[in-house]
Amino acid sequence: MVRLSSSEQYASLIDNYNTWMFDCDGVLWHDDQLIAGAVDVLRLLRHRKKTIVFVTNNATKSRRDYKAKFDRLGVEAHVDEIYGSAYASAVYLSSVVKFSKDKKVYVIGMSGLEEELKEEGIQYLGGTDPTDCTLAPFSLADFVLDEDVAAVLCGFDSNITYTKLSKASQYLTRNPGCQFLVTNEDSTYPNAYGVLPGGGALSAALRYALGKDPLCIGKPSITMLDCIRAKVSYDPKRTIMVGDRLNTDILFGQNGGISTLLVLTGITVESDITGPNASSIIPDYVTGSVGDFQVVGTF
Amino acid sequence: MVRLSSSEQYASLIDNYNTWMFDCDGVLWHDDQLIAGAVDVLRLLRHRKKTIVFVTNNATKSRRDYKAKFDRLGVEAHVDEIYGSAYASAVYLSSVVKFSKDKKVYVIGMSGLEEELKEEGIQYLGGTDPTDCTLAPFSLADFVLDEDVAAVLCGFDSNITYTKLSKASQYLTRNPGCQFLVTNEDSTYPNAYGVLPGGGALSAALRYALGKDPLCIGKPSITMLDCIRAKVSYDPKRTIMVGDRLNTDILFGQNGGISTLLVLTGITVESDITGPNASSIIPDYVTGSVGDFQVVGTF
Repeated sequence: MVRLSSSEQYASLIDNYNTWMFDCDGVLWHDDQLIAGAVDVLRLLRHRKKTIVFVTNNATKSRRDYKAKFDRLGVEAHVDEIYGSAYASAVYLSSVVKFSKDKKVYVIGMSGLEEELKEEGIQYLGGTDPTDCTLAPFSLADFVLDEDVAAVLCGFDSNITYTKLSKASQYLTRNPGCQFLVTNEDSTYPNAYGVLPGGGALSAALRYALGKDPLCIGKPSITMLDCIRAKVSYDPKRTIMVGDRLNTDILFGQNGGISTLLVLTGITVESDITGPNASSIIPDYVTGSVGDFQVVGTF
Repeated sequence: MVRLSSSEQYASLIDNYNTWMFDCDGVLWHDDQLIAGAVDVLRLLRHRKKTIVFVTNNATKSRRDYKAKFDRLGVEAHVDEIYGSAYASAVYLSSVVKFSKDKKVYVIGMSGLEEELKEEGIQYLGGTDPTDCTLAPFSLADFVLDEDVAAVLCGFDSNITYTKLSKASQYLTRNPGCQFLVTNEDSTYPNAYGVLPGGGALSAALRYALGKDPLCIGKPSITMLDCIRAKVSYDPKRTIMVGDRLNTDILFGQNGGISTLLVLTGITVESDITGPNASSIIPDYVTGSVGDFQVVGTF
């Protein structure tokens, strides 16, 4: 683990890596607040002809939703540079599994996830459908199982209901071969006012009820990198993942055989990487903030 | 593990045990359908002056709700023979923890749980309160933390919402010393039409989000037996637990140092107790159904 401090170190990192993968929340911004210097550093990397990829586990947003957020914050970004776990889940189904056009996915998730499924031509049920976004009692006696449901995809859903958990559990136990997929397994969802339960907490309910582990699409799963690799050509030796979470971003880089840079502007604090309670996940490099790269020069 | 088959074996079990603890669902009935012979066998035990205790993990019903169910099915039972995990949770707070009258419990659960808390004089928030039974977005910015909340109690709740999960997580992380309690950890909730996610699935979401394990009140926890012991005097050597679940009922008996009898009218099937996939939890006795005790005689 190298702690970056001198301008030579920052400059040499930029020289060494051609492809820069960035987590967004906690790295480039907090909610709607940009991290100081982040825009300048991204501009510097573009000036140096680096390939930039944004890799986020947030499954509530489609790539278009994300693009709108970049625009709002005044950060240059292009839709095809953005890889969210909603998009990656849809691409996994359409391109990796070759999910049949006749089959359907039962969704626990929000409109951004639905939008990506639609774009990839995947039929789905659940999600924002008012039938399932209800606190009316769920009656198993009245439930009609749709035999075409061949996968359950669970992401963060602020409209989680017992009806959704029940339907997902019915499909996963009663439709033979029904796949259990989760967009990501983040335990928490930090925002400007504190920390709330993340998408992984919702799938944990299903995991516990069913005694089954899902396939995770988002970081740290290699499935997310497979999705990027299908669209972006990069040399792993000259690629670096920049993130604020050890068990998603840094582990993701390590699982994918690329270099890793931890920033301390997000969820990870000093005691997570040094001292008696340090994590066993060790990044290649550490710096306080992406803004630190400004010492190399600004554009 | 003794398989009961001869009338002498059934008769000797009745002679040997003075206190009979029964799980209800899957043992005495399925939903609203009595197990054949169950009423006669309970009558036989009462005729022989046995102490009868009903021990159930269902946290949605108060003891009074349960009494009404016994009455409806025509099974003799008295409120003080019924120990549900809702009642046990309330008694745990009032008698074991000596929960202060000035403090409050944040509840994920239904009216039966609230009723038992009320009876024990415990103040609570959440539960069936329409403020929390809502799919309106939860805003952490607008959330006012009640500093008097000193415990979160999570049971089965068919009105689970992200607001409830969020508030519970706020209390457990922001109120120092706030206790994390669960009525029970049953992963599933079987009914006449199939199997749905149980109360343990909802607390699993909180466990995953918080990285904290709760104290479980219901079976197999010894806390449930402490609650019974506070009200019923019994000799462990002459007490037997009758149940249909290995990891709740039978483990509960074993944790409490009492004998155990498994019946096969509920969740456990033959392959769970014999063959290569048999559980490591082995009951003292096995029989097909409580109705089998009718061979001893009827009353």
